[in-house]
Formats: sequence, structure tokens, C-alpha cells
Amino acid sequence: MIPVAVNSTPSPAIHPAWLPPESFRALGSRRIRVDATGPLADTVRAEVSRACDLFGGTVQPTGAPADLILALDPGRSGDGFRLGRRGAVTVVVADGASGLLYGLFEVVRRGEAAFDQTLADERQEPAFGLRVLDHWDNVFVHRVMGQVERGYSGGSIFWQDGRLRDDLTRVGDYARLLAASGINAVTVNNVNVHAGETHLLTDRLGEVATIASTLRPYGIRLHLSINFAAPVILGDLPTADPLDPDVRRWWSDTTDRVFETIPDFGGYLVKADSEGQPGPFSYGRTHADGANMLADALAPHGAPVRWRAFVYNHRQDWRDRSTDRARAAHDHFAPLDGQFRDNVILQVKHGPMDFQTREPVSPVLLAMPNTRLAVELQVTQEYTGQQRHVCYLPPMWSGVLGFHPTGDDAPTLAERVSAGPAGSASRSGPGRSPAGVGTGGRASVRTAAGGVLSAVANVGDDPFWTGHPLAQANLYAVGRLAWTPDRAPAAILDEWITLTFPAAPAALRHVLHALMDDSWETYEQYTAPLGVGFMVRPGHHYGPDVDGYEYTPWGTYHFADRDGVGVDRTAATGTGFTTQYPVPWSERFEHPGTCPDELLLFFHHVPYAHVLHSGSTVIQHIYDTHFAGAQRVAEMQSRWAEADGLVAPALHARVTERLAEQRRSAEEWRDQLNTYFHRKSGIPDAKGRPIH
Amino acid sequence: MIPVAVNSTPSPAIHPAWLPPESFRALGSRRIRVDATGPLADTVRAEVSRACDLFGGTVQPTGAPADLILALDPGRSGDGFRLGRRGAVTVVVADGASGLLYGLFEVVRRGEAAFDQTLADERQEPAFGLRVLDHWDNVFVHRVMGQVERGYSGGSIFWQDGRLRDDLTRVGDYARLLAASGINAVTVNNVNVHAGETHLLTDRLGEVATIASTLRPYGIRLHLSINFAAPVILGDLPTADPLDPDVRRWWSDTTDRVFETIPDFGGYLVKADSEGQPGPFSYGRTHADGANMLADALAPHGAPVRWRAFVYNHRQDWRDRSTDRARAAHDHFAPLDGQFRDNVILQVKHGPMDFQTREPVSPVLLAMPNTRLAVELQVTQEYTGQQRHVCYLPPMWSGVLGFHPTGDDAPTLAERVSAGPAGSASRSGPGRSPAGVGTGGRASVRTAAGGVLSAVANVGDDPFWTGHPLAQANLYAVGRLAWTPDRAPAAILDEWITLTFPAAPAALRHVLHALMDDSWETYEQYTAPLGVGFMVRPGHHYGPDVDGYEYTPWGTYHFADRDGVGVDRTAATGTGFTTQYPVPWSERFEHPGTCPDELLLFFHHVPYAHVLHSGSTVIQHIYDTHFAGAQRVAEMQSRWAEADGLVAPALHARVTERLAEQRRSAEEWRDQLNTYFHRKSGIPDAKGRPIH
Repeated sequence: MIPVAVNSTPSPAIHPAWLPPESFRALGSRRIRVDATGPLADTVRAEVSRACDLFGGTVQPTGAPADLILALDPGRSGDGFRLGRRGAVTVVVADGASGLLYGLFEVVRRGEAAFDQTLADERQEPAFGLRVLDHWDNVFVHRVMGQVERGYSGGSIFWQDGRLRDDLTRVGDYARLLAASGINAVTVNNVNVHAGETHLLTDRLGEVATIASTLRPYGIRLHLSINFAAPVILGDLPTADPLDPDVRRWWSDTTDRVFETIPDFGGYLVKADSEGQPGPFSYGRTHADGANMLADALAPHGAPVRWRAFVYNHRQDWRDRSTDRARAAHDHFAPLDGQFRDNVILQVKHGPMDFQTREPVSPVLLAMPNTRLAVELQVTQEYTGQQRHVCYLPPMWSGVLGFHPTGDDAPTLAERVSAGPAGSASRSGPGRSPAGVGTGGRASVRTAAGGVLSAVANVGDDPFWTGHPLAQANLYAVGRLAWTPDRAPAAILDEWITLTFPAAPAALRHVLHALMDDSWETYEQYTAPLGVGFMVRPGHHYGPDVDGYEYTPWGTYHFADRDGVGVDRTAATGTGFTTQYPVPWSERFEHPGTCPDELLLFFHHVPYAHVLHSGSTVIQHIYDTHFAGAQRVAEMQSRWAEADGLVAPALHARVTERLAEQRRSAEEWRDQLNTYFHRKSGIPDAKGRPIH
Repeated sequence: MIPVAVNSTPSPAIHPAWLPPESFRALGSRRIRVDATGPLADTVRAEVSRACDLFGGTVQPTGAPADLILALDPGRSGDGFRLGRRGAVTVVVADGASGLLYGLFEVVRRGEAAFDQTLADERQEPAFGLRVLDHWDNVFVHRVMGQVERGYSGGSIFWQDGRLRDDLTRVGDYARLLAASGINAVTVNNVNVHAGETHLLTDRLGEVATIASTLRPYGIRLHLSINFAAPVILGDLPTADPLDPDVRRWWSDTTDRVFETIPDFGGYLVKADSEGQPGPFSYGRTHADGANMLADALAPHGAPVRWRAFVYNHRQDWRDRSTDRARAAHDHFAPLDGQFRDNVILQVKHGPMDFQTREPVSPVLLAMPNTRLAVELQVTQEYTGQQRHVCYLPPMWSGVLGFHPTGDDAPTLAERVSAGPAGSASRSGPGRSPAGVGTGGRASVRTAAGGVLSAVANVGDDPFWTGHPLAQANLYAVGRLAWTPDRAPAAILDEWITLTFPAAPAALRHVLHALMDDSWETYEQYTAPLGVGFMVRPGHHYGPDVDGYEYTPWGTYHFADRDGVGVDRTAATGTGFTTQYPVPWSERFEHPGTCPDELLLFFHHVPYAHVLHSGSTVIQHIYDTHFAGAQRVAEMQSRWAEADGLVAPALHARVTERLAEQRRSAEEWRDQLNTYFHRKSGIPDAKGRPIH
């Protein structure tokens, strides 16, 4: 491995996100010892040293007096650490080298409080062992999707016009930011692996290795999205059949070469048989056949393959009401439970559709007790305002991770997924140790021990990283939730504010909470109502178009007519999707009387006069929420004006500009939705507000 | 001028369209004299010679006995000719050299009948003096629009990837086809003149001259679309203000250089202040100011500028019902009547919107008695099936040209436009002779004497020229209607069949008439109903999307709600568009009781239960026509199967493939439209047919 120097402070033109130099003041003004050796300990030492240079502290040699000691527990390994006071000294004792890094950033996060006499002893370890950000970055600019698919922050930080960027400074800065948020892996190319990108796996592996070296000092491992047809495209084989011996050998040899070049390579990510991508169905094989082939190639290296469950018929006939896209992943994958190798991770979008503003939890996540699972979130705001709208997503993610699949007192989804397969210790197979691949040694870092949380990244080469400066908070939060899924969204936001705006006055803190705490709910208010989803412009997915997908092959319908709206997914009269859930949810979702309001139209087709638990009718709820949502955005504009002078002018200006667009867009949503439903229902707004 | 050899027969890979060698048999087996000299006479002689080589006839010297004599009337000029028998000899006496060419092709068209003893004497001359096809071809492939904007026949025959094609054989073949149909001018670049294409006017004029040389042997003059901002882009001037002396000088000098290079250059075409194109509004000037500036630059050369009237606000707010795109051209241009130079031709789309399947005639064409006008038709099937659907357009065009603006006994639109401005002989101004620019000498060919018919071309580098082989008939027909606007569409189709399929058996003729005669009506049946227009997918404009443009800035709405549908354009309660028409149409359109059924929803918002003149309700009409239209397409498929073996296999296969897509698309239109209106109205189909 090539040692890479710890990066200097980002260029002043690039916003420092949640690691401005000032956030290191409490740390950097102390005497600090790092009682450990090795590459990650070197990174920690360099961080400490830089902070001390800035704020007058000192890096102490082993044995010397210190205010903070960072040390390793030789009996343990992994990402966890203990933090506490030993007399007048604050101590971080890490399970492994990576824990040293996470402990350091915990001290940064706490600031002066980390050195307070009253600091309570605390142990932290991540709920999810693999915490990975997937970049949908293309190497070559895609004719339709551009450099970054569903990217709203400029170009890729890795790739530019067909090649690796010459200057990877930002990649190093990015690794540092991610480590400080708790992330430990990154996938550097789009899951839609186009012909050019397929070559990253072989003849362009050198470029990949360069990125891996840049990420490595911060404990970030590199994953690669691969093309299932690679043996045909790259290997000149006549088939990519996963049961063909030549194909299996090709993957095995190719994977060996990947690990020769990148010894700590993280693993593969695969989108197969989905939206036009090739996959095992082409050869009459199952997804277990496909995933297991790749797992077998990776197993000798202790690495996993993440196999996406996002498989559905995107050539649906809207006239056929029996097909239900929401059912597709469960229909495809649930029967395969128990057939996957232990180093296969089935990566499942958090909802059954596609990252809508509101969806129920995917039943696949509740149906596969014998399969390693990854919960996939979307940080990039494809359907949630595309980083032109403020939309702080942790409240949504908390709802997903804290969902109780089998009843309010049973374990949460996060607890189930992070615990891993129920019977994994007793099963055997290639690449599996008696205690599972995830236990012990080098492999433990890479594979699915403790479950997997993945998220589609939202950064680009924009000076603010995320286009909308406030969208940085979503990126920060995903790592924090991967450590502690039950951490309150408002508390994470508070952390982010403290780090990003050191010494923020209370007024700024109030403004930011006012803008962001409820911004997901606000966004939901002025967009598609009551869980029905979509209603966006086809293609780019921004702005309203109620019928945009209504008569298309994509399987995303609302069935609004003059009498009512919603999708009947009940067992009694609908598509039967509700039966994919365990009790009690199968029953709760089945009946309008027990179905939560916010998901009513996802599960039921109801008359406009249907009365919600809230007491309002569906139609009046549509009017009320759309007027309220747009009104809230207007108030956000006013609140943000109060922050003028409290943040850097460039940041203030950027947010101001985005809020103007958010307001325009929210009013467009309000008016289109209200007009659409007024024209259909004929029912006037009870409050007589203007509907066009 | 560089003499260019008459092109040989098109390459076998390219379909010969309506000039297969066989169509020359009657001519080519006779003794023929061409009693004239000059370039066009040379073309005629070469055509005759080639036909005789094929079929055993002879080209006779002056004075020798002949079966056909083509000669010039020294006392006349222009495109007209007389055809008749003088004893045993068929004689063409042409007004001018171009008439010789048109007379020759008339003899070809008649075949053996041209040599029949009973041939009656006849004089032919074109109703429209300028008969021009406008190509929306880009030199550089446009990111969104491709090589040809709204092109459905492959690439441009002129341009490829930023440059003039090396091989212009097809351009020569194209000129020959156009001459045989009666066309006499071609515009070789898109009216949306992008930055690269702007240079055709100056430093890339050599390429334009090469095309002009290739068109010239068949009497086709070249026109160029120009960029109003050219003085800024090309001339380094700080402004393109049409009243600025430097700008005027730049246009004058530039135009002089164009004519130095291309002495018979045809004129300019301009789309200004429309859909993002620059124009005089940027400088606070009127469209008369803009057009007159260019007219003044062209006047010394006796050439016209065609100025498009397609100006409207494409940033409309759908919430503002007072704005009406249909009004825009009249609102902008009618007040300018009388302010344009005589060599300005205001080019007006035939309807007030944008080449929809059914529109009323544009009121601009009825409102400007003191302005030279061009009627603009669209041969390329942007909104009429994109050359995947059979849609024979002459029935629509005949309706436009034969429209009686001021009453059923008054002159037709074609008669009015072809007569030119009422008082032009008594007016004076730059570039105007006492009898008008259009009279006498070289200028008569180029300018607007006899009015102007223009049409957006539909050809590309496809082997069949037009993608759909049957779309050739539209291209053929536009020239024929420009000569004789009252020629029956079925008769033109019959001519086209005779030429294109020489010796076609009656069975083939019947099949082609069955497919094509009513195909426009069929297309209308399964698409947007009763003149309301659009309902297409935004952007590419193919296939149904009822609400696709409903909430957009483009000004193309239908206002369907649960009670009714249509746009109220009345004076009494609507946008007042009806007042732009003269009596009796202003009154007829104003009242649902007198408004023609086929335009009802263009002018009126009516309840679904409104009873049409046909006796059906609006909603039942929608259901009935959509079921009928799709059914007709299924029948077209069956009929075409009968033509197997009667046409070349490649042509049969191409039409078969297109009909399959037309059927799929027609059924999609049927089902989306029926479902949409059933969901809105709640009224069941009286015949109980399946609505999804």
C-alpha cells in the first residue's frame, strides 16, 4: 500500500462542511497522546498535530502528561471505542485502529464537553458493520443522465469526461468528512454500469486503485459496481451464465487480480435484471445463482457482494391492474431466502417502490430471516426536491430504521437487519467460517457483520459539496444513524450545526432548526398526498405532473378518477400486496380504519369524501396540506433572511437562491395538485381559497 | 454559374420515389424535339435523352419530325406552359425555361395519354409563384433535436456531423424529384439557427454555394435561414438593432457578398423573437423594423425575406386563463399590416397554434390585405404520426387552401394569398417597381409574385427518403397543390401511385387508396378530439399524454374537468379569439350551434353531454371515434397484407413494420383517451366496450 499524506485543509473555495478548522479548537488547544502505531493511527496523529498547530496544543510522546489519550484495547478489534475520564484525563480506548479514528472525531464533536470533569463513561460501536455510500457516478458523461446519475451537485468528484480526475484532493477531503460522520466504505461508480465503466474492473483497475489509496487513510474501503455481462464484454466469453464453468473461472481470476491490486478492496455491488441491466434471468438462472457466483469469487478474500433487490417489470401495461410494482421485489426474492451464500448481501431499498417521499417499509426487509440484508437509503434528493428544496431526511430514515415489523414491543428493523441472518452460525458453504464470514480478522471490517446500511450519495464537485448547503446535513446524518439508528434527528441536526457553524449564535441555531426539522413533512405536504407517490415530471423527476406516470410502463399509478384516488393493494379486493407483511402490519395496512393516514392512498382507493383519522376528508386534506406546505416555504424564506450576517455571505446567498426556487416550485405543486383534484372531484375547498 | 451534369438514376439502394425509370416509358419510346437553349433546356434535353436511351426513342434535331416538341413562347416568361396536340404531334409551349421543365414532367405524368389523339389543349401555371420546402436541418447534430429537427427520416441529405456531405448525389436526385412535383425553392437549414449554423451566411457560404449548384439544374433556388443576431455573432457589432446604421450596413454588405457567390440566391427565412430565438423585440423595435431591414438588404437583388409569424409567449402561466396562444400571431402582426416592404413575405403557419391535426385557418392569413403572405404547411409529420403512422395530409391542406374566409361564395384562401397584397401596384418603397417587385425579369422567379406556399420538408437520408414509404405522397402533393390548390387529394394520390408504381395492378391501387385516402381522418379519430389539439407527450410529441402540456408554460390546454372539456375562445365569455376572424366566421365560431363539430373544443368549453351536430354527445363521440380509429388501423394492416407481392419486398416490409407500430400506438391512444375521459366524466360507453 502506498502511504498517502493526510490532506491539508480544503481550498478556501471549497466549503469545509462539518470539519471547519474552528471545530478542532477544544481538541487542538490540549496536550494529546496517541498511544498506537499503524496507518490509521498515523492519520489520527496527523489530525491531532494539525489541530495543535492551529490552536496551540501539543502532541505528547508516550508516557508524557496529557489531557487526552487515544489508545488501543489489544484484546478487541473493530470500529467501537470507549470514551471517559481517568482523573483529569479524557481517554479514548479503541477496539481497533478504525475505532481510534472514530473516537477522535467523537472528541471533536463534543468540543469542550469532552474535557469536562463530568464526562460520563460511554461505549460506542456502530449498529451496522458496513456503512457504505454508493455513488451513481459515471466515468463517461451519459447522454441523458450526465456525469452523475441523479446528481444535483455538479460533476463527479472522482471522474471527469471519461477519466479519473488528476487532482484527487477533494476525494481525500471527502474521506475525512465521511470518517467523521461514521461511514466506512464508498462505491465509486454507478450501479448502471455502462460499457465504458465496465472496464474499471480490469484494464482500468489502476485508476480505481488510485482512488482506493486516497480513501484508505480515513478507513474508507472502496467498492465497485460491476456489470453482470462483464465476462462477455471484457472476457470475450460467449455467455455470462452464472453456472457456466468458464464464466465462474473468469470471475474468480478477475477478482483475484482486483485483490492483488487493491488488497483491502471492499466488494462488488450489482444491479441485475433491472431497468435494462443484464442479469441471470437472461440465462434462465435465479438471482441466487447470480449472486452466489460472485460471492464464490469474493469469498477467498473475505469480501461480500451486494446484490440489489430493485427488480421489477418496467415494461408494465397500465391497463393491467393485476400487476403491482410494489410486490415485485418480494415476489422475486422472498422465495430465495436461505439460498444465498453468507457473503451475499441483498441490498433492499427502504420502501417497495423507489425512494418516494413516503413509503411503507419494504416487506423484503421483513421476509428474509436467513439472508444478509442491507437497507438502502437515498441521500441524493431524487424525489425529495433535488437539493433545490430544503428536505432534511433523517426523520424519514428514523421511521424506517425504527419500524417495528412484528409489533410495537418487538425489535426494530435496524435491530433485525444489524443482527444478521438468524441461523448463519449453523449454516455452511463456500467462504463461510463456522461463526460466519463476518467474524474475526480482516474480513470483519469488510463484510456484513452487524448488518449493512447503504445510501446513495449526494455530493459532487460543487463548492458546497451538495448544491444546497443544507443538504450537507443529510450526508452527515446517514453515517450517524448507521452507528446509532435511534439517535433523534433533531439531535443529529444539532450536532451538525455545532460542527458546521462553530460558535453559532442561538439565533442561527433556531433559524436552522426552523428551516430543517420539519422540512421533510413540509415537502410531503405540497407534493403527492397520503403516500400515493410520484406525480413528478417523467424523466428528470422534478416538479409536479400528476398524470406524468399514470399511463406509462413504469408501474407507478394513482388511479384518480372523479370519485376517488389511491391504489387498492389489499388482499380482499386489490393486488394483495398487504399479505407480504407479517402480522400485525398485514392487518393494519389491509383496512382503511387501521391504515395510517400518511399511507392511506398507498394501500387503498378511497372516495374523496373518505374521513381520515385526522378528522379531515381526503380532498380537504389535499387542499389543506398543499396550502399549508407552500405557506411554510414562504415562512422559511422569511426565517432565512434572519440568518443574514450569521453565516458566510456565499452560503447565505446560495440558500436564499434555492429557497426562491423552492417557493416557486412549492406554489406550482400546490396549484397543480389542487387544480387537478378540484377538476376531478368537483368539491370546493371548504375555506374558499384560490384554486385555478 | 457552373454547369452541373444531370444526375444519373439514383443508386439502386435508394428508392426512386415518383421517378422510377419505368415512368418514362411513354416519353422515352417517342421521337422528341427540344426547341430551346440554355441551362434548363439542357436539363430537359438530358432527361429526354436518358429516357430515349432506356426505351428506344430518339432525340430529334430542330426541324426534324417528332412525336413531341418542347418549345418556348418568346413572348412570355415564368413557370407556365401550354400542352396540346398539333396534328399528330404533342406540343409543350413553355412561358419560360422553367416551364419547359414542368411541361416535360407533365408529359411524364400523363404517360401514353399525352400522345393520344384526343388530348385536349390545356394551359397550366402555378397558383403560387414561390413554392418552397423549408428544411429544419442542423449542420451540427443538436443535443436534443438531432441532425434534423422534427425529422423522422434519418439524417440530413445536406449536412452530416457539422459539415456539408461530400457526396451530394442525393441532393441532385432530390432537386429532380421536387421539380417533377412543381417545387421551385428549398431552404437548406433549420429556422432555429444555432451558433454554428449562423456561419453559413459568411465564412461557410462556399458550402451553401455548392448546394445551390447542385439544385440549379432543376430550377430549384436556394434559401437560407438566418440568425437575427448574426451581426453580433459574426460581425463583432455590439448590437443587432435593425435601425442601427452599422447593423443595416452589415446586412447590406453581407447580402451583397451572398449574391456575388450565388447570383440566383433565393432569399432569407427568419424566425425571430420566437421560442428563444433573438429578434427585434430585444431592441424595442417592431417586427416590421426587423423584416424591413433585411428586405432593404435584399431589394437590390430582387429577392425576398420570409419572416415567420410564429411568435407567442412560450413562458405562459397556465393559471392565467386570459392569455391565449391562439391569439398571439394576430395580436402581434395584424397591427403591422401595410408597414412591410413589398419584398417582405410574412410566413404564417396554416393554423393559429402549431401544426395540429385539426386547427381553424389562422386569422392572420385573413387579416393582412396589404402584406405579402406565405401559407406554411408541415409535411414532416411532427404531430401527425411522425412517419410511423400513415397520414396522407392533402385533405387537410385542401381544406386550408380552399377555405372561404368571407363567405362560401367569396374567394378561397389560396386565391387571396396567391393574388398578393391588394394595393401593391400603387404603393412604393425600396425594392419596389411600379408594378411590384414580382413582375418581369429575373426577380419574378424569386419573389412573391403569385403568392407563396411553403412547407416544412419531411425527407432525410433514409433509403425511402421519408422513413415511411407512403409519406412520399405528402411530399409529392405539396408541390402539386401549390400549382393547383383545388386539385382533389384523391386525384393527386392517384397520380402519385401511377408514377411510383408504374403499371400498378388495380388491386394495389385499391389497397393504397384504402390505406391513405382517409388516413388523416383516421389519425384524428384516435388522437385529440374535436379540434382541442395536443395531448401528446411533451418534448418529442409522439404518442398520447392527455395532461402532458396541461400545466406547462406552452399555452396548449384543454381544461378538461369532471363536467366538460374545451377552450372557451369566444368573445362573450372566453379569450375573444373568435373576434380575430372576419364575418361570417367570427359569428360561426362564436356559437356552439354554428361552430363546426370538428373544431368545437377549440372554440368552446362544453359539458360532456353536449350534443354535436352529428347527434352524438361529446363523450360518446370521444369513445366512438377512438374505438373506430383504432379499428380502422387494424383494417389497414389487413389491407396491406393484400399488397404482398405487388410492391418491392423491402417496401412492403417497411410499411408492414410501420403499420404494426401504428396499430400499437393507435390502441394506446384509444385506451388512454377513453380511460382519461371516463375517469373524469364517469359516463359509461353507451356500447359497453372495454375502457380500462
